[in-house]
Amino acid sequence: MDRVYNFAPGPSMLPLPVLEKVQKDLLCYGSTGMSVMEMSHRSRMYLDIFEKTVADLREVMGIPEGYKVMFLQGGATAMFSAVPLNLMDGGKADYVDSGNFAHNALVEAQKYGEVVVAGSSREDGYSYIPDYTLSPDAKYVHITTNNTIYGTRWDHIPETNGVPLVADMSSNILSEVYDVSKFGVIYAGAQKNVAPAGVVILVIREDLLGHELPITPKVMSFKKMADADSMLNTPNCFGIYVAGLTFQWIKAQGGVAALEKVNIEKAKLLYDFLDESRLFKGTARAKDRSRMNVTFVTGDAEKDAAFVKAAAAQGLVNLKGHRIVGGMRASIYNAMPIEGVQALVAFMKDFEARNK
Amino acid sequence: MDRVYNFAPGPSMLPLPVLEKVQKDLLCYGSTGMSVMEMSHRSRMYLDIFEKTVADLREVMGIPEGYKVMFLQGGATAMFSAVPLNLMDGGKADYVDSGNFAHNALVEAQKYGEVVVAGSSREDGYSYIPDYTLSPDAKYVHITTNNTIYGTRWDHIPETNGVPLVADMSSNILSEVYDVSKFGVIYAGAQKNVAPAGVVILVIREDLLGHELPITPKVMSFKKMADADSMLNTPNCFGIYVAGLTFQWIKAQGGVAALEKVNIEKAKLLYDFLDESRLFKGTARAKDRSRMNVTFVTGDAEKDAAFVKAAAAQGLVNLKGHRIVGGMRASIYNAMPIEGVQALVAFMKDFEARNK
Repeated sequence: MDRVYNFAPGPSMLPLPVLEKVQKDLLCYGSTGMSVMEMSHRSRMYLDIFEKTVADLREVMGIPEGYKVMFLQGGATAMFSAVPLNLMDGGKADYVDSGNFAHNALVEAQKYGEVVVAGSSREDGYSYIPDYTLSPDAKYVHITTNNTIYGTRWDHIPETNGVPLVADMSSNILSEVYDVSKFGVIYAGAQKNVAPAGVVILVIREDLLGHELPITPKVMSFKKMADADSMLNTPNCFGIYVAGLTFQWIKAQGGVAALEKVNIEKAKLLYDFLDESRLFKGTARAKDRSRMNVTFVTGDAEKDAAFVKAAAAQGLVNLKGHRIVGGMRASIYNAMPIEGVQALVAFMKDFEARNK
Repeated sequence: MDRVYNFAPGPSMLPLPVLEKVQKDLLCYGSTGMSVMEMSHRSRMYLDIFEKTVADLREVMGIPEGYKVMFLQGGATAMFSAVPLNLMDGGKADYVDSGNFAHNALVEAQKYGEVVVAGSSREDGYSYIPDYTLSPDAKYVHITTNNTIYGTRWDHIPETNGVPLVADMSSNILSEVYDVSKFGVIYAGAQKNVAPAGVVILVIREDLLGHELPITPKVMSFKKMADADSMLNTPNCFGIYVAGLTFQWIKAQGGVAALEKVNIEKAKLLYDFLDESRLFKGTARAKDRSRMNVTFVTGDAEKDAAFVKAAAAQGLVNLKGHRIVGGMRASIYNAMPIEGVQALVAFMKDFEARNK
């Protein structure tokens, strides 16, 4: 087996010890005589896995009492509908338009209530986190803590003065310490920092449950899903199991705070090089740079393509930027070891030397 | 490794060769240097898997031109909302109420339009497939081809005289040959006959696309999902991959027709014994007996519990019936080998002899 450094934006690398454990138990989990994929979601053996997964997420994320944790399906895109369906409640909501997914979220919300664009960097190609003005009477404020395509990150949590803060954390959940008590709702597709695609994590303050519009599809009702403990329908049992293994791996690394330190170091390696390079240059405003997705260009599309191709030949794969931004993007989630980033920087230096 | 015979109703047994292949390639798929779980859904390597999976499903199910195949999330429960959202179109729909999931489907559809209960066996504990009268002006007719909880199966396809027929095939898809051209929509949660939970198969006649209500959540729009080839959001890539391996396994078994023969034989082994037993008795009307879920009782709840426990000790697990019906249920999907059914019948005979 010759594994590559996979810089894909999601689905993306998983920790090798997680994959090894999945492989080992694939035909027979413990003494159950079956694969986790074959377990009834109502069976005690599966509920043990599920309950430990919830407890471990609560622990690594520091989720206080009074919040419900759920594992649903449909990714952030399903949550773009579910959030307004459950929280808009005949009122209006503030959305900060900081990237493509932030924009998709607000367009979808317009189906279910009044959306106020509280701030936007759309006209500037989303290269920074915009300033914003919040409505005191909004039902909620929606932000996207990390913008995968543009490589930007909120460097603060907005003060909403009591209005529930809803955050799409799909691309940076568990990569840095957040004070969960500042949020009303946190959701995240799992396919970047947690598990294979097909699981979405939902953390919601319990007083926000029970306000859904009557047209809400059953599987999108946060209240019904909370009451059924994520099992109103058959959940993605296997994906949740892998998520649980990742949470155990995070604990073994020293928790989210320890990973955050490494993530800062990994990002610094790349940004420091970009700032001194005469060939490559970062595309995001320095203050708002993402620690998860590092976007950069040479300014020459042909050279960009040559770089991506040459890097892949060295086992540094999926460095092509999103089609909207072009250039390159290195996604360096929790599972990307610092050695992968070091190898990338070394290759970039070498490429630059060869392309003066 | 000591694998059991797992009679769970879903998630349930997967073919052992499928699990073995998943295990072998878990850390590194082919020469890609990564797990399928880590692949970008937009990458060529994953699209190759996805496209082969679609083509193989078309082949094993005999899906004609003019139908679109999709792999979505949220299971049948999500489809209970999505079907009326996409097809009701301001009109009414006929639902045949033949079981618990059939009933859940019609209750959900009432949110989005007028539902006509075209027939029901609810008052008789759903122990048979009811007679029905269809409305000539319905937008569609909804049936559940196999009722997992009650162990019943439609023995014919209703004549709808041009009204699109929508079928929930969650618990018997690919277990018998269906003429797909008789249906407008077929959907099925994958966790019984196909793959781990978290994938729902949708087969839809293309002229039925594009009629969704404006309130339809984006991930539930059949048209948008068809246009995006199931990738409007990140799909459950890994679950779809396992589904693809199952389709290859089905081909290796000789296709659905060959599996149907074995399934008839497996079911007959159990029903023949039930009909001659003086201890056990089947609960479904003989004409409507399911080939996938065989429900039976002793008539004595304590004896039922003792049987389930003793069977589990012999490696015959998950035989407890659904809490609504009580008693026992043996789910014998495609992946249950005939040896498992033979072992169960032998154990039942033995149990009967010991409990005269």
